[in-house]
Amino acid sequence: MNILVTNDDGIYAEGIRVLCESLKTIADVTVVAPDSERSAVGHAITLSDPLRVKKVNRGGKFFGYATTGTPADCVKLAIRALLKKRPDLVVSGINLGPNVGYSVLYSGTVSGATEGAILGIPSFAISLATFQKPDYRAAAGFAKKLVRIIEGHKTLPHGTLLNVNVPAVNKKRIKGVRVVRQSRVAIEERFDKRVDTRKRVYYWLTGEEIEADGQEDADIETIRKNYITITPIHCDMTDYQFLEELKSWV
Amino acid sequence: MNILVTNDDGIYAEGIRVLCESLKTIADVTVVAPDSERSAVGHAITLSDPLRVKKVNRGGKFFGYATTGTPADCVKLAIRALLKKRPDLVVSGINLGPNVGYSVLYSGTVSGATEGAILGIPSFAISLATFQKPDYRAAAGFAKKLVRIIEGHKTLPHGTLLNVNVPAVNKKRIKGVRVVRQSRVAIEERFDKRVDTRKRVYYWLTGEEIEADGQEDADIETIRKNYITITPIHCDMTDYQFLEELKSWV
Repeated sequence: MNILVTNDDGIYAEGIRVLCESLKTIADVTVVAPDSERSAVGHAITLSDPLRVKKVNRGGKFFGYATTGTPADCVKLAIRALLKKRPDLVVSGINLGPNVGYSVLYSGTVSGATEGAILGIPSFAISLATFQKPDYRAAAGFAKKLVRIIEGHKTLPHGTLLNVNVPAVNKKRIKGVRVVRQSRVAIEERFDKRVDTRKRVYYWLTGEEIEADGQEDADIETIRKNYITITPIHCDMTDYQFLEELKSWV
Repeated sequence: MNILVTNDDGIYAEGIRVLCESLKTIADVTVVAPDSERSAVGHAITLSDPLRVKKVNRGGKFFGYATTGTPADCVKLAIRALLKKRPDLVVSGINLGPNVGYSVLYSGTVSGATEGAILGIPSFAISLATFQKPDYRAAAGFAKKLVRIIEGHKTLPHGTLLNVNVPAVNKKRIKGVRVVRQSRVAIEERFDKRVDTRKRVYYWLTGEEIEADGQEDADIETIRKNYITITPIHCDMTDYQFLEELKSWV
């Protein structure tokens, strides 16, 4: 099995290293990842600039290809230009920080897997729900398990990827795995208005932790209860429920 | 009525000027848009850098606020920091080029409206389906009509925005308006592998026109038949159809 691995924290991040160590025990792994952090890039791709690629060693051994692009660029470039063989699976992560609720739309990690799904390859994104003192081992272990599960079912529906979030607790405290929907809530954000050293105003985005919507079957509530969550995400964003009503409007 | 207008072609683009001219006949319009082109930025937001804001004149008169951010940044910044009053509607466009199929995920124009929807404000994105010799008048006229329609229905479902594409033909040749789903197809892309003047390799993304999927009720086919298309898009990307099956996998 050939697995393409990317992330948005950059090729030198700890999360992608631990992920690869785990996946290499069951598959051939190729890393194509951004050369530095690309957080909150959404599903951005690079049209107006060239992309460059560099081989990167970690721990004295070849680790993977670093690119000047976004996670989506990395997956596109890997499949369309760098890899000799089309991968069987795309895995993006392990992200430092959860990707839940409407924040999924901003996520570079998720966009790596989204690009895989657009290109017709089974894909998942995996994130660790903490910003502090990450221990990626439980997440890396689950990534391996999920690879086996997807392999057993052969494929995912076209245009659908899996968004996985792992609670940042000791493996023994993880209660299980739940398939849940994306919460319909956003981070409460505001802008700090500041003045620079040349007396010019600038704004800096700041946000509180995302509020749970109190719904039991959704990602935020479930991960807080120490379950690993899996949300199937699709690239067809049509609101089919509202579509019929909208027809009567025009 | 207060309308916030943004785009991804930048505040100096022709599309946003024609749009504002049309909307100003029925509403108070505030423009907050990127200071230059931000195409294919997806739903990117700026976390690691400050945002700056500059007043911009066009034709000798105040036109709007230019920011150093993405379309999503512009909408966030407008609502959270710049505007005194929360807008009744967010309109993003008029984009030069269609936003259809899986390309919707890459669209900065759509992401401006997506951010509006996340913040709970009725929002739509509007694009002209051509890359050449644009005449934005029909699209600007329809934008005004759609504002009236949304106003008449008071609101849109929370987290849902409208993605509008207007065929690039003379107004008289437009056959009507159709509510359709997003096509499940992507652009056929490849990378040009080139060598720079210092003999270093670089890659540049290039794509063919998006292929229609032959489905009558979807955006690409419908716009080719010279209908204006409206697709309701929602920010909850959960694949509810696959969710139940996936439960039996884990």
